Amino acid sequence: MNTFGNIFRLTSYGESHGRAIGGILDGVPAGIIISLSQVQEALDRRRPGSSPSVSPRKEADRLQVHSGLMALSPDETEEMQRRLLPLTDSTDIAVTLGSPIGFMVENIDHRQEAYDHLRDKFRPNHADRAYFLKYSLRDWRGGGRSSGRETISRVVAGDFARQLLCGLITARSADKSDVLLPEVVTTVESIGGCNDPVRFTEIIDRAKAEKDSLGGVVRCRVTNVPPGLGEPVFGKLQQSLASAMLSIGAVHGFEYGDGFKLGEMRGTEALDFPLAEGGTLTNHCGGILGGISTGEDIVFRVAFKPTPSIPRELPTINDCGELTTVFTAGRHDPCIALRGAEVVKAMTWMVLLDAWLINRGING
Amino acid sequence: MNTFGNIFRLTSYGESHGRAIGGILDGVPAGIIISLSQVQEALDRRRPGSSPSVSPRKEADRLQVHSGLMALSPDETEEMQRRLLPLTDSTDIAVTLGSPIGFMVENIDHRQEAYDHLRDKFRPNHADRAYFLKYSLRDWRGGGRSSGRETISRVVAGDFARQLLCGLITARSADKSDVLLPEVVTTVESIGGCNDPVRFTEIIDRAKAEKDSLGGVVRCRVTNVPPGLGEPVFGKLQQSLASAMLSIGAVHGFEYGDGFKLGEMRGTEALDFPLAEGGTLTNHCGGILGGISTGEDIVFRVAFKPTPSIPRELPTINDCGELTTVFTAGRHDPCIALRGAEVVKAMTWMVLLDAWLINRGING
Amino acid sequence: MNTFGNIFRLTSYGESHGRAIGGILDGVPAGIIISLSQVQEALDRRRPGSSPSVSPRKEADRLQVHSGLMALSPDETEEMQRRLLPLTDSTDIAVTLGSPIGFMVENIDHRQEAYDHLRDKFRPNHADRAYFLKYSLRDWRGGGRSSGRETISRVVAGDFARQLLCGLITARSADKSDVLLPEVVTTVESIGGCNDPVRFTEIIDRAKAEKDSLGGVVRCRVTNVPPGLGEPVFGKLQQSLASAMLSIGAVHGFEYGDGFKLGEMRGTEALDFPLAEGGTLTNHCGGILGGISTGEDIVFRVAFKPTPSIPRELPTINDCGELTTVFTAGRHDPCIALRGAEVVKAMTWMVLLDAWLINRGING
Amino acid sequence: MNTFGNIFRLTSYGESHGRAIGGILDGVPAGIIISLSQVQEALDRRRPGSSPSVSPRKEADRLQVHSGLMALSPDETEEMQRRLLPLTDSTDIAVTLGSPIGFMVENIDHRQEAYDHLRDKFRPNHADRAYFLKYSLRDWRGGGRSSGRETISRVVAGDFARQLLCGLITARSADKSDVLLPEVVTTVESIGGCNDPVRFTEIIDRAKAEKDSLGGVVRCRVTNVPPGLGEPVFGKLQQSLASAMLSIGAVHGFEYGDGFKLGEMRGTEALDFPLAEGGTLTNHCGGILGGISTGEDIVFRVAFKPTPSIPRELPTINDCGELTTVFTAGRHDPCIALRGAEVVKAMTWMVLLDAWLINRGING
Repeated sequence: MNTFGNIFRLTSYGESHGRAIGGILDGVPAGIIISLSQVQEALDRRRPGSSPSVSPRKEADRLQVHSGLMALSPDETEEMQRRLLPLTDSTDIAVTLGSPIGFMVENIDHRQEAYDHLRDKFRPNHADRAYFLKYSLRDWRGGGRSSGRETISRVVAGDFARQLLCGLITARSADKSDVLLPEVVTTVESIGGCNDPVRFTEIIDRAKAEKDSLGGVVRCRVTNVPPGLGEPVFGKLQQSLASAMLSIGAVHGFEYGDGFKLGEMRGTEALDFPLAEGGTLTNHCGGILGGISTGEDIVFRVAFKPTPSIPRELPTINDCGELTTVFTAGRHDPCIALRGAEVVKAMTWMVLLDAWLINRGING
Repeated sequence: MNTFGNIFRLTSYGESHGRAIGGILDGVPAGIIISLSQVQEALDRRRPGSSPSVSPRKEADRLQVHSGLMALSPDETEEMQRRLLPLTDSTDIAVTLGSPIGFMVENIDHRQEAYDHLRDKFRPNHADRAYFLKYSLRDWRGGGRSSGRETISRVVAGDFARQLLCGLITARSADKSDVLLPEVVTTVESIGGCNDPVRFTEIIDRAKAEKDSLGGVVRCRVTNVPPGLGEPVFGKLQQSLASAMLSIGAVHGFEYGDGFKLGEMRGTEALDFPLAEGGTLTNHCGGILGGISTGEDIVFRVAFKPTPSIPRELPTINDCGELTTVFTAGRHDPCIALRGAEVVKAMTWMVLLDAWLINRGING
Repeated sequence: MNTFGNIFRLTSYGESHGRAIGGILDGVPAGIIISLSQVQEALDRRRPGSSPSVSPRKEADRLQVHSGLMALSPDETEEMQRRLLPLTDSTDIAVTLGSPIGFMVENIDHRQEAYDHLRDKFRPNHADRAYFLKYSLRDWRGGGRSSGRETISRVVAGDFARQLLCGLITARSADKSDVLLPEVVTTVESIGGCNDPVRFTEIIDRAKAEKDSLGGVVRCRVTNVPPGLGEPVFGKLQQSLASAMLSIGAVHGFEYGDGFKLGEMRGTEALDFPLAEGGTLTNHCGGILGGISTGEDIVFRVAFKPTPSIPRELPTINDCGELTTVFTAGRHDPCIALRGAEVVKAMTWMVLLDAWLINRGING
Repeated sequence: MNTFGNIFRLTSYGESHGRAIGGILDGVPAGIIISLSQVQEALDRRRPGSSPSVSPRKEADRLQVHSGLMALSPDETEEMQRRLLPLTDSTDIAVTLGSPIGFMVENIDHRQEAYDHLRDKFRPNHADRAYFLKYSLRDWRGGGRSSGRETISRVVAGDFARQLLCGLITARSADKSDVLLPEVVTTVESIGGCNDPVRFTEIIDRAKAEKDSLGGVVRCRVTNVPPGLGEPVFGKLQQSLASAMLSIGAVHGFEYGDGFKLGEMRGTEALDFPLAEGGTLTNHCGGILGGISTGEDIVFRVAFKPTPSIPRELPTINDCGELTTVFTAGRHDPCIALRGAEVVKAMTWMVLLDAWLINRGING
């Protein structure tokens, strides 16, 4: 229930105000070169406090890797076997051993006293009440396991997945200089219904000033997709992507290709006419047919709800089921979609690598 | 890759024009009474040829059950153990043994000669080319494994899941007469962009006459939902539902609660205010918070693309990559969403039962 | 719970006196040539009635394949894509499509009336009472799901696994003429404590005449093992083999290499000294180190208990917990190990193929 | 591949001389009281340096828990919800939140320079060469992932499993004062072939003095077993136990009940006659029939090979395949079975809890 993936798997743990957020990556191919500073950069991009539009919680979010990697000696180039060195805090370039990668990020900026008043109240539209219904108790400190801090593990896993997949594709390619590596680009397409990126900061600032929050839509495009990824019936590539996206806390919708618009279209409008040079004219299908990647760009959209944490006194119920009010402030993002884009990207890389490994296992 | 679910699992097999479509249900609780005629009725609702708006392929689609059930003797009522009888073709009321239920439906109305011309051509927007890219060969008879006939297994599994879940909830309830059983209602909300059900037949007929097809949107509502279903991080209930829906061949989008509209909303608009009598005023969240059912109605929408099989000569490529044309006729539904609603319902029941069993396993 | 394997997976169903025994193979690589008559031959080797030493139940045990394969046209040799034909009853040479293989064997020789007296009594040392404790009901007809007929699915899966693995290794080999294919040989090493195969028939005949049954030990040797199969910690090759063997009904023990004798040895006695020409002098380790195949022969032993079904009146309890007696006759093997050797072989092939596919997926 | 279990799952990581050994427990029921000092005591029992007969490596092996638990306030007894406190280093009594438990133990006493000479040599009968064959590189520091230190995660998981299962059974019992909790007792039955525990120390000391090591056999008995654990075909309880035991590094054999002796017995000798007061006279079947626990004691035996690490110069090959010698000293146990008994116990608890949760999920 805390594992994602089939061959390449992330198992994660961690509450928002517990000691650490961490995870284990399994199914890691051996001998792939990893830049740990690049993983750290991905973490930095999702970090709170990085801009006025995101949560002001201050966390260094330094990645600690406990296993599965050894450092490469920079001066020796001949024999990989001999140049494996222990990992140190300053290691950047490492190589995978094939064993699971255990990692963690400590939680430093706890302010659990800020949550004391939530011990017996459920914040509206939060997981609080659902957790209580399920478990009869809950971690009342900042959402516990339902916090956005849980996505740290995903971002770490996602950047490992990116580097692993690119390393594997490069290693497979006869002509290393000419290999086209997949790229995943996520864009915040709209915020609170506004599609004009120039106005995003302004809109967010206004929502913040008005003690409100905003939903958003993230668009993702994968280019240079290896064809043949995904399985025909219950492992369809769009199914894995949808599962990945809907596993992200605030996500309420997923569509690929022309998505919901296809529900309004006619067959003749939705056809992708093939081009002599390969590919199709239109890509209504979003790069996936029959659950399998065709090699065309994979395109999908993900809807994030506005965060329900707004600095206001709101009506709610307590753990005795009585109506009351609660002040739901905290240090929250006014628009989760901004940092969510990094999580969408991470989950996409995980899905791609896992599908690639499954496909290589079964089909060579 | 052909298995869906964690504890309650469907594993399915079958090509469109192979000998049979079938599956195995695993994780079946013992001692639950099953009406086989009700399963057959579900199959009948998805059957082609049942109305002018769906595929004219003629299939009896008679369910054969090979294992996992025994019949109940109608005249003895005392001791369940002794009244277990072998299953016969006319058995209606049976009881689950706890062992896997193997079932199948024969394919009778083959017309594979109708597909002969497709041996070396890929129909546009079908799985044909993707399968060829992946496997270097494919079953050219009517889509093979990618055919809609694959959903037979889902509908069978779904109705078993419905009866099992209702049986389990009833068995658990102290007061049998008063138990509220979950219900899953699916409605075709729109066809080709038209939201008026009165006009659906007319619209479909016109599309058919114009040798075209239509997309559609199916809405699903689950009532009397047991609270506590779903797991917090990678087994979120909306994740399982999205995975289930996107595993259906023609589905391009999933959203729950207010879905994509939440991406355009403000936090203050999206809040569900609690009511003193229980539940909330609005249910923007669609009955799921933090990945867990709250007990309110679960609401979601699913978008089906228009079938790409339309009786026209269309541009395509062949298995040498050359541009050519293909006539994609067959006996296809002009609007897959109509029969798709039955499949959405089936997958929903499977997700609910599986989540219920997982929850009972871990949380009692 | 009725699925075995990770990538290559058998899911099986079927009670002894239900309508059929069957299964679904998933994770099947596409494009591999399969001889269905060879699968049937494997089934024939495990069939009851094939010699006086095994069960006299008469079953044709004809394999029916419902999906996942198409026949190859014998006269065309050029283009595989075009020569795929529908499967018929007389097809021998077929090719895998990459989709799941659904198969079944009908149960014909039911004699459920022979089991009528067992409806309320538990045969000693059978699964009967355990099933009743677990499920509160049971299929009283010949053991139901616990019957040895369940192994039909394993034998079918095992021979598919053998042909798939050999096909995959051949396809990978540059020099097809010179490829060394793995072989799995199982031998009944002892029966009722006697190690002399010449005396096996005599010993069994005597046990039969004395209304008794006999345990036995099966030895398995795998040659030409690809090195690198198995995973370091929780997917050790010996773990998968032990899991496979202990999943067979009557098996009570598994050991590999020098097995239990290693528990009595010193480190200096157990060392395998390497040879300059490759391999080791002794193979105490049984071809597996650290959970991973080394390329040397894999050797293991499996202990089968004597069948508890002997034609005698035996003390037992009934479903009310009262002491009584039961006559446990049926048409049972006096020594299960004889037919068990075929099942050991089948499970070994399944483990090898699955490990091979996992290893190819992760490590190329 | 680094995950064990189905519902209750341990995923583990860590190399012998990496930074830490750790794991994540998933499928943890909420609201169960855990004594962390008891988990630490289990760790202490497996710790090296605890007696002259085990490895002299010095490790504090302090358990760190990062998530999934909160402390209980000692002075409040009324309302569990409110008394949940953050975990501190001195917390003993904690309660499970239902979220995954991330834990780790740091590696302190590295001496990787002691392994420098092993960078290009494979120690005989170690995993070294197998890892190199599989991955083309390996962690040469003390066996890396194949080290016995990996079992730390198992012992932690095992003691959590013990406390969880006992907590669950107690919670289910109407009369708390009278509930019979399962117990798992492991005994070192023999060392190097000697069955007399009085002589074990003497025998080990002699082997040590002679620069040799010894195999051993561990016997395990589970009492007060809940009936109905295990699944009929591919989740047999003996299968899970065998899988668990053969996943332990040095284990070469598993047998339950009368085990391999059953292979030499007659049916009449192997029958367990029922007693009027419940249970059977003899328990040849080891407490499991048809894959399902009967409620009688579960009894099984596990064979450990002698450690191949002995302080001698031994013939071996290097990573170029050339014959050479290697000195395999290190700080190793002369007889792994001693500390292995703790690991056998841990794995047994994990199997029992997982089977119990699966059974509750499916059968209530």
